[in-house]
Amino acid sequence: MIDLTLIGIGTGHPDHLTLQGVRALQEADLVLIPMKGEDKEDLAGLRLEMLARHGAQAVQAVFDLPRRDVEDPDYLGAVERWHDAIAQAWAAQIARHLPGGGRVALLVWGDPMLYDSSLRIAARLDTRVRVIPGITAIQALCAAHAMPLNSLASPVVITTGRCLRDHGWPEAAERVVVMLDGACAFRDLPPAGLRIWWGAFLGLPQQILDHGPLAEAGPRIIAARAEARAGHGWIMDCYLLSREG
Amino acid sequence: MIDLTLIGIGTGHPDHLTLQGVRALQEADLVLIPMKGEDKEDLAGLRLEMLARHGAQAVQAVFDLPRRDVEDPDYLGAVERWHDAIAQAWAAQIARHLPGGGRVALLVWGDPMLYDSSLRIAARLDTRVRVIPGITAIQALCAAHAMPLNSLASPVVITTGRCLRDHGWPEAAERVVVMLDGACAFRDLPPAGLRIWWGAFLGLPQQILDHGPLAEAGPRIIAARAEARAGHGWIMDCYLLSREG
Ligand SMILES: C[S@@+](CC[C@H](N)C(=O)[O-])C[C@H]1O[C@@H](n2cnc3c(N)ncnc32)[C@H](O)[C@@H]1O
Ligand SMILES: C[S@@+](CC[C@H](N)C(=O)[O-])C[C@H]1O[C@@H](n2cnc3c(N)ncnc32)[C@H](O)[C@@H]1O
Repeated sequence: MIDLTLIGIGTGHPDHLTLQGVRALQEADLVLIPMKGEDKEDLAGLRLEMLARHGAQAVQAVFDLPRRDVEDPDYLGAVERWHDAIAQAWAAQIARHLPGGGRVALLVWGDPMLYDSSLRIAARLDTRVRVIPGITAIQALCAAHAMPLNSLASPVVITTGRCLRDHGWPEAAERVVVMLDGACAFRDLPPAGLRIWWGAFLGLPQQILDHGPLAEAGPRIIAARAEARAGHGWIMDCYLLSREG
Repeated sequence: MIDLTLIGIGTGHPDHLTLQGVRALQEADLVLIPMKGEDKEDLAGLRLEMLARHGAQAVQAVFDLPRRDVEDPDYLGAVERWHDAIAQAWAAQIARHLPGGGRVALLVWGDPMLYDSSLRIAARLDTRVRVIPGITAIQALCAAHAMPLNSLASPVVITTGRCLRDHGWPEAAERVVVMLDGACAFRDLPPAGLRIWWGAFLGLPQQILDHGPLAEAGPRIIAARAEARAGHGWIMDCYLLSREG
């Protein structure tokens, strides 16, 4: 029998890991370390350091992830097929390293519940699945700015750059968090009355922060993001927008 | 000089604490332990155990929190005055125990960014404020159900029981998380096509979970909640609603 534990590891700071996460690393027989592409070096390195630091005895299966067919015009279908292929890649590693069964761990960026497909992929395998929550990018953003997510007892919308671009400001929302935004979708919003709190590489040594009225901070952020992206070859960023007084 | 660190401690499981949180506990000179009322025993106990377990050398200032004037018809004004009074209570403890300055820690339930007033209260003091993120109830809920928060690349609304009751289902949302709901606000929603994932005392030994189509699970949850609340004398719960296929 296979037990699969998805361990949220936080968003870059090695001390985002929880005590629950440390224990799950130490109890694993096998850790899957899929390699993803450009950001390979930085992010797989963090995972390997976590395992070493916490004395994990698990076998480490480092392998390349299948890539999504970005030419496929059927976006949702392509995602389904890609997840099928990833599930097969996990299953192959598990069969090879744990033929008699055991405990498998996967180190998930942030928290597995938030804009991550590991749970959907895991559902394709015939395993028990356990989740260990981890610090999300939203939390790293708010912590870095010492900023509450919500205004007093008010709702918050979590959305993506694409949704913000396609649908504009979510009706009735006072605060909006935007993730998965490769193109600074805030630039299309009428900036009057909006403030932004932005963070890139949150929790990592190269962390960058900016905040202010959108009209002033927006152009600064667009420039800083382009420069950081060019410098590092990749970027991860997210932001909180507020339209209160 | 005073440095104040708000440490998110998660929502009940002592191993929700992050390594960053452990370190901040160990580095503190003074830990503020405000006592809140009914749930006093359970929740202050968890904080004291965390301090003992991680060998924190800090002075522990256990004190009663001022209470909000619930008769005051000016709700927002009463909250402001209450936060003023809490800030004064913190300042009095700090002045008494750390007259020469130093590092103060406050252990915040969940994450300080989410429906918590510590950041707003801290802003009333003349201190540097640092935030250490912690696992929120939303994450404990999703982890316990091994359930993603969002459906594929879609937005999520985080709201309160009062907002859900007063404004109904947030327009255009597929998924809604509800917190701070003392009265099962889901009971007023037309249940057709909705599913619910509910959790009470998440992370605590008395954790209760239920999920299913709202039409079936809703009445079960209302009954289970009333029973658990009567049994324990208090309850904390939250839930995720989804209206996808
Ligand atoms: C595929 S989602 C994964 C989110 C992750 N599961 C979490 O809990 O934060 C990736 C998005 O998260 C955000 N993100 C993740 N890590 C980040 C970091 N260290 N700094 C800024 N944004 C980050 C970015 O918006 C990025 O596009
Ligand atoms: C004042 S808010 C604080 C939220 C906290 N800062 C967090 O990050 O989760 C309290 C609400 O959080 C939710 N909550 C907190 N702890 C919980 C737990 N252990 N189980 C279920 N819900 C919880 C409930 O909805 C409760 O009404």
